[in-house]
Amino acid sequence: MGKVRVAVNGFGTIGKRVADAVSLQGDMELIGVTISKPSFKLDIIKKAGYPLYSALPGGQELKKHGAKGDINDLVGKADIIIDCSPEGQGAENKKLYQAKGKKAIFQGGEEAGIADLSFNARANFDQAKGKQFVRVVSCNTTGLCRTLYAIDQAFGIDNCYAVLVRRAADTGDSKKGPINALVPETSIPSHHGPDVQTVLPALHIMTAAVKASTTLMHLHVVSVKLKKVASKEAAIKALEQAGRILMVTSSDGIKSTAELFEYARDLGRKRGDLYEVAVWKDSVNVRNGILYYMQAVHQEADVVPENIDAIRAMLGTMAKDDSISKTDQSLGIL
Amino acid sequence: MGKVRVAVNGFGTIGKRVADAVSLQGDMELIGVTISKPSFKLDIIKKAGYPLYSALPGGQELKKHGAKGDINDLVGKADIIIDCSPEGQGAENKKLYQAKGKKAIFQGGEEAGIADLSFNARANFDQAKGKQFVRVVSCNTTGLCRTLYAIDQAFGIDNCYAVLVRRAADTGDSKKGPINALVPETSIPSHHGPDVQTVLPALHIMTAAVKASTTLMHLHVVSVKLKKVASKEAAIKALEQAGRILMVTSSDGIKSTAELFEYARDLGRKRGDLYEVAVWKDSVNVRNGILYYMQAVHQEADVVPENIDAIRAMLGTMAKDDSISKTDQSLGIL
Amino acid sequence: MGKVRVAVNGFGTIGKRVADAVSLQGDMELIGVTISKPSFKLDIIKKAGYPLYSALPGGQELKKHGAKGDINDLVGKADIIIDCSPEGQGAENKKLYQAKGKKAIFQGGEEAGIADLSFNARANFDQAKGKQFVRVVSCNTTGLCRTLYAIDQAFGIDNCYAVLVRRAADTGDSKKGPINALVPETSIPSHHGPDVQTVLPALHIMTAAVKASTTLMHLHVVSVKLKKVASKEAAIKALEQAGRILMVTSSDGIKSTAELFEYARDLGRKRGDLYEVAVWKDSVNVRNGILYYMQAVHQEADVVPENIDAIRAMLGTMAKDDSISKTDQSLGIL
Amino acid sequence: MGKVRVAVNGFGTIGKRVADAVSLQGDMELIGVTISKPSFKLDIIKKAGYPLYSALPGGQELKKHGAKGDINDLVGKADIIIDCSPEGQGAENKKLYQAKGKKAIFQGGEEAGIADLSFNARANFDQAKGKQFVRVVSCNTTGLCRTLYAIDQAFGIDNCYAVLVRRAADTGDSKKGPINALVPETSIPSHHGPDVQTVLPALHIMTAAVKASTTLMHLHVVSVKLKKVASKEAAIKALEQAGRILMVTSSDGIKSTAELFEYARDLGRKRGDLYEVAVWKDSVNVRNGILYYMQAVHQEADVVPENIDAIRAMLGTMAKDDSISKTDQSLGIL
Repeated sequence: MGKVRVAVNGFGTIGKRVADAVSLQGDMELIGVTISKPSFKLDIIKKAGYPLYSALPGGQELKKHGAKGDINDLVGKADIIIDCSPEGQGAENKKLYQAKGKKAIFQGGEEAGIADLSFNARANFDQAKGKQFVRVVSCNTTGLCRTLYAIDQAFGIDNCYAVLVRRAADTGDSKKGPINALVPETSIPSHHGPDVQTVLPALHIMTAAVKASTTLMHLHVVSVKLKKVASKEAAIKALEQAGRILMVTSSDGIKSTAELFEYARDLGRKRGDLYEVAVWKDSVNVRNGILYYMQAVHQEADVVPENIDAIRAMLGTMAKDDSISKTDQSLGIL
Repeated sequence: MGKVRVAVNGFGTIGKRVADAVSLQGDMELIGVTISKPSFKLDIIKKAGYPLYSALPGGQELKKHGAKGDINDLVGKADIIIDCSPEGQGAENKKLYQAKGKKAIFQGGEEAGIADLSFNARANFDQAKGKQFVRVVSCNTTGLCRTLYAIDQAFGIDNCYAVLVRRAADTGDSKKGPINALVPETSIPSHHGPDVQTVLPALHIMTAAVKASTTLMHLHVVSVKLKKVASKEAAIKALEQAGRILMVTSSDGIKSTAELFEYARDLGRKRGDLYEVAVWKDSVNVRNGILYYMQAVHQEADVVPENIDAIRAMLGTMAKDDSISKTDQSLGIL
Repeated sequence: MGKVRVAVNGFGTIGKRVADAVSLQGDMELIGVTISKPSFKLDIIKKAGYPLYSALPGGQELKKHGAKGDINDLVGKADIIIDCSPEGQGAENKKLYQAKGKKAIFQGGEEAGIADLSFNARANFDQAKGKQFVRVVSCNTTGLCRTLYAIDQAFGIDNCYAVLVRRAADTGDSKKGPINALVPETSIPSHHGPDVQTVLPALHIMTAAVKASTTLMHLHVVSVKLKKVASKEAAIKALEQAGRILMVTSSDGIKSTAELFEYARDLGRKRGDLYEVAVWKDSVNVRNGILYYMQAVHQEADVVPENIDAIRAMLGTMAKDDSISKTDQSLGIL
Repeated sequence: MGKVRVAVNGFGTIGKRVADAVSLQGDMELIGVTISKPSFKLDIIKKAGYPLYSALPGGQELKKHGAKGDINDLVGKADIIIDCSPEGQGAENKKLYQAKGKKAIFQGGEEAGIADLSFNARANFDQAKGKQFVRVVSCNTTGLCRTLYAIDQAFGIDNCYAVLVRRAADTGDSKKGPINALVPETSIPSHHGPDVQTVLPALHIMTAAVKASTTLMHLHVVSVKLKKVASKEAAIKALEQAGRILMVTSSDGIKSTAELFEYARDLGRKRGDLYEVAVWKDSVNVRNGILYYMQAVHQEADVVPENIDAIRAMLGTMAKDDSISKTDQSLGIL
C-alpha cells in the first residue's frame, strides 16, 4: 500500500510543525502546504522543499513565487487534509473538504461540533477509525487529557479541578499583550473543562483560567480527588509510565518554563519544541485523598504528535500503540 | 489622653505607606521614620516633613542629611514601633524593642513566631489588646483572610483552596524577573495556607502558587466548599458588605490588574494604592456547593490599614468597628 | 472678567488628566467632560463631580447615567474645547468646533495640519495668541522640545539626533504587546524629528525609534552637536534652569523608569504622574563638542501642563511666564 | 595531521553552543566539557555523548555522574581550551592554562587584557596566528564589528555612533529583570565603543546603551558618517556581501526580534540560534552623508562561529577564508 497523501492547509504556528512532522513519517507523503500571502514563510517552505499552494482560491500572486496551485488543487490530490488555518476558519474550509469527499483533521480552535470526534491519541484512538472529520483538541485540553487520563486509568478520578495560568501570546508574536497585567477569565468554569469532556465525557472536571504576560508555555495547577487512595510515589509512577509526559524537577535547575524551554532547545528539538506535557515531580503531592501537581504545556507543540496519530487512527492504517510509538520515535519524544 | 507616639522603622514599600497613613490619623503622631543610607527617599521624607532617623546605630552619614538621631533614639521616644525593615530583619530588631520595653508591630515577611498574634483587623482585632508584639500578616494572607472570613461568617466554610498567581516584583523594582516565564512554587501546599491559619486557625485551607511576570498585583483563584448552601447573589452580597473588599466588573472595563490599578490611580489614591481586595463580581459562581471567585491583591497597599488598626487594637484605645471605620475614612477606602 | 469655560472632549489617558488640571486652575471652569459609553470612568467622573456629556450626538444611554447632554450641547457652552478624543478623530471633531465658531486644542496624535500652530509652552507660547486651533505636540515631541530648546537657547544647536526607546502600551492597557520583543521602527528618520520641527522649525534633528516591552515611560538617548563649546557642568545647569525638566541621578537609587515612577508616586502626584521630563544627570556628557544625555518621558503626563498653558496663550489671558509658573504651581511641578 | 583536541571549559549559554559547534568540525575533536555541579545539563551532555569533566578540581560528586576527571585532567589532554566559564572567572582559569602551557580562547565577558588579541574572524583572523591567548569579543561587540568592518572596507568610516537597546536576560533565565522598566546605562560612552576598538583600533566610535525587558536579542541603532559618499543601495549591497550578516525586511513579516527568532527556529537551527547579525534592510538609509541602520544581535549565538575560527587562526591550521567558509557551512549560516 502506498503512502498516505497528506495536505496541510495553513502554515502558522501549528501548521508548520505538523508539516515537518508529516514529512518525517515513512508512511506519509506531504503533498503540499498552503499560505495566503507572501512572507518569510516562503523562504522556509522553499528551504524545506515542501510543495506550495495558495490557501486562497486562485492565488495568482503566490504562483509568481512558485505555488503549484491553489487550495482546490491541493485538496483534490489529498487523501486527508490537516486543517491548520486561523482559528474559526475551519468551518468554512469544511465545506470544501465535504464537497470533494475528503477526510480532514481540525484543530482545537474550532468548535467541537465541526467534527465527528474530539481526539486524543491515548484516550480515544480507536474511536477515530472511519470518521471523516476529527478534531485534535487544543494545547491546553491535550495537556489536561494526557495527565488526567493517566491518573484516571491508574486510580480512578472522582472529580478534578485545574487552574490554568495561560501564556498570552506565542513567542513569534510582537503584537499581543499584556505587557504588565494578570487577566482573569472571569467566566468560571472556563471553556477548558467542557472541552476536556469532549474527549473524556465521564470526567467531572472544573477549570478556571488567568492570562499572564509570557509567551513560552501555559502552566496548570491540577488537583484531583482520587477514587482509589494513592501515594505521591504511585502517582509519579503512573505519570511517568503514561507516555508523552515528561517529569522534571526544580532542583535540577528547571525552575520555570524558561529553563524548561531551554532544556528542549538543548535537546536539539526543532524550534525547541516540547511535545510532552512536563510535570514538576516535586510538585506532586497527595493531601486528604487529593492529588496535586503542576504541569507546563508548550502551546506550540504538544498537539503535533496527536495530529500524526489522528491520521493513522482515521484511516485505520496502524494500531494505536504502534502509531504512538512510531510518532514518538520520529519526533524524538523521550 | 495624648496622641500615640508611633515610629516607623524602615521606609521601603510598606514603611513609607504606613508612615503616610499614620500621619493621617488624628489620634497618632508620627515621631519618626528610618532609612539606612542616603537615596531619593531623603527627598521624599523631607518633602513630607517626617522626622528622620538612621536605621543603623550611629548613622553619622545620615546626620549630615538632617537625621535627628539613630534607631535607638527613635525607639526610646516611641509608644509603639511599626517594624517595616527588610524581610527577615525583624527578629534582630525585636531584641532592641524588648530591651527598651516597647510594643511593636511586625510585617508578614517575618515568621509567625516573632509575635504574640498574627493580626487581621476584621478577624481578630480584640485578641490584640495588651499584646506586646503583633504581626500583620502578608499581603496575600491579608487578602485571603478578608474574603474567606466574610464567607465563613455568612455561610460557614467546610474547606477551601486558593491558587495564587503572584506578581514577581514590585512596580519600583528594576532588578527582579522573570521577564518571560511562569515559575511554579512546587512545594504544595504553598506557605500561604498555613499562614492564613495563623489568623483563622479553624479554617481548612489549601494553597498553591505560581509566580508570573508582572509587578502590579497578585491574583487569587479561590474555591470554597460552603457549609450552608448559598446562591451566587448571596455570596456577592456577603462580600460587598464585609468591608475592605471592592467588587469590580470586567464589563465595566476592568478587565485585568492593569485597568484595576488605573482605576485606583484615577480615584486619586496616593501612589494609586488599592487598600481593598478587589473581587471580580462576574467571576463569582457557585457550582455543586462550591463557591468560586477571583480576587486581586495590591501587594504594596492592602496591609496598610491593618497596621493602623493593629496600633489601636494593641493599645486598646478604640473599639474594633470604630477603628476600622476611622482608618477607612482617613484612607478614602470605598 | 469671568473664568474661561473649558470643555474636555474625551476622558482617556490624556483627557482625564487635562480635566483634573483644568479643575485646579483658578482662572478656568471645567464645564464638562465626555465619554462615549458607560464604563468605570463614570464612577471616576461622578466622584470628581465633573459635568458629564456624551461624546456621541444623542447619547441616550449615558443620559440614564446622568449625562447633562451631548457633545453638541457641551461645545455650545464652551469658550474653548480641549480635544482628547482617540487618535485621528480630531479631524472629524474639528468640523463641529468650526461650525460653532469655537476655539479648540488638539493633541499630538493628530496631524500637524489640523491646527494653526504646533505648541510648546516654553518654545512658542506667544505665537498662539488669537489662533483658533492649536495642537499640543505629542509626549515624545514635547519631551524633546523641552530639553533641546533649553540647550539651543544656552549654546546653540548645530544639529542633533535622538534614539527613542518607546514604551509599547500605557499602564492601564492589558491588550497591546509585545510581551517579549524589541520592535524597530524601520523608517528612519522616525516621525518624531519632523514633528519636533513643527515647533522648532530651524532645528536640524534626526530621530530613530525602537519599541520595547514596557508601559511606564519612553526613554530618549539624545546627542547634540553644539554651536558654542560647553562643559558638562554648564549643560547640566542649562537643563536645571529651563523648567519642567527634572534632574535625577542613578546613584540616588533612580536606576530606571521603574524607580522614577516610584519617585513620582512617592511625591504624592495624582496617578504618580511625572509632568517633567526627567534627565539623568550622570548621563550628561560632552565628547568632541557633542553633548549626550538620556531622558525619560512619562507619556501619560508631560503634555498636561502644556495644554493648560495653551488655553491661556490662545486666549491671551496671561503672559507666558505667568502662565507657566501658575500651571506649575497648581500641579506641584518641582 | 590529526584533529585538534579541543576542551570547552563551562557549559552555560556560550559553552554548550561552542561544544556543539566544535563537534561538527571535521578537523576538531571535542575531548571534553565541564560543569561545576549536577543539573539538567548532565542529561544534555549524556545525550550528546560529550566526555564530562568537573570544572572544579576534584569533583567527586560529578564522578558519580560519570565525569571522567576534573579540569586539570581535561586541560592536560587538550591542544586548546575554549574558556566559557562564568564572566570574570577567566582570569583565574588562565593561571592553569599557563601552568600547563596550553593555548586558550576567552569570551567577551573577560577584560581585554586577559588575552594577546581581541578577535573577530573577518577583521583580524591573521593576527591570531601563534598567539597563546585570544579573546573572542562579546556578542554586542561582535555584532558591531561585523557590520562596521564591512562598511569601513567599502566606504571608509569617518566616525560612528551606536545606541544599543540591550536584552536584560537570556531566554532560559527566570531570575533577572526588569519586568517593566527601561534601564539607562548612564555612563556615556558605554563600554561597548572602547571594546569595539580592541578589534578595530582606528575606528572612531561612540556608544550608549539602554536595557529593556526582553530576553531574545539586542537591537542596535547605528549611524555612520562615511568617508566616501554612498547610496542606500550601495550600503545594502556592502552589508549583503560581507558574510555573517542576514538582511531581513519588516514587510516580509519580520517586524521585531520575536519574528526574527521565529524565523531562526523555522530554519531548524539548533536552539533557534541566529549566528548572523540581522540588519533590517528597510531601516538602511543615508541622510546628509550619514548611513543609518538597525541590527539585531542574538546574544546567545553570534560569537559561536567566531570561536571556531579563532581555533584555526591561532593554530594556523587553515587560511581565513577557508576557515570562515567551513565554519559557516557546518552551522548552516546563510
